[in-house]
Amino acid sequence: MHGVINIEKSFGKFQDTFSPQIVGELNGQNVMLVRCEGDKVPWHAHTGEDEIFLVWEGTLRVMERDKSVTLHTGEFCIVPRGIEHRVVPEGHVKLILFEPVGISHTGDVKAEITKERFDRLEG
Amino acid sequence: MHGVINIEKSFGKFQDTFSPQIVGELNGQNVMLVRCEGDKVPWHAHTGEDEIFLVWEGTLRVMERDKSVTLHTGEFCIVPRGIEHRVVPEGHVKLILFEPVGISHTGDVKAEITKERFDRLEG
Repeated sequence: MHGVINIEKSFGKFQDTFSPQIVGELNGQNVMLVRCEGDKVPWHAHTGEDEIFLVWEGTLRVMERDKSVTLHTGEFCIVPRGIEHRVVPEGHVKLILFEPVGISHTGDVKAEITKERFDRLEG
Repeated sequence: MHGVINIEKSFGKFQDTFSPQIVGELNGQNVMLVRCEGDKVPWHAHTGEDEIFLVWEGTLRVMERDKSVTLHTGEFCIVPRGIEHRVVPEGHVKLILFEPVGISHTGDVKAEITKERFDRLEG
């Protein structure tokens, strides 16, 4: 068994924004925590991966080209593969992601925030 | 885009225990909510799936044959595939699961709580 991960304490271990931290791995998927602040995420799509945005704390606008939703603490939505999207946090937002290992968080788009690899947060 | 899922409101839509409710699907994985109460989960293992237990509310003891951990609200652990385990809720517990589509929640073991299929909770 992996150890116990306390989500709030894990968020306390990093402050960088737009830098997903891997806190678990199962079935080829990573569980990741990420902090977001500022309008920095470019329009992008993931050819082969659906994406979930689960708001642990804060308010996040998730935009597609023709619609958008606003997520509050304790809410999530799923953006299907292939759909162009971007997210805009309102203030500082803490998110939980659950995504296939190896996904690029900005899809095929290289942006200021793009990370070549994600950090692994030690329990 | 699928709609917005509010986790707490979704829990409010069902009261059955040990009956996982599918609230999202992505990358061949289901996002499920389940309520647990009582010492009813038999020892079991999943041959091909790792399993996450994320406690949305409450306290859950996760036992393997040679060790156990206690999870509180906002904590999770992952039980790797092939490892015999069982879970014992303390009182009533609300869990979030992320698991491959088609997983049996009691592995190869058929128990009183075993469901042949999971319900899909409409947003």
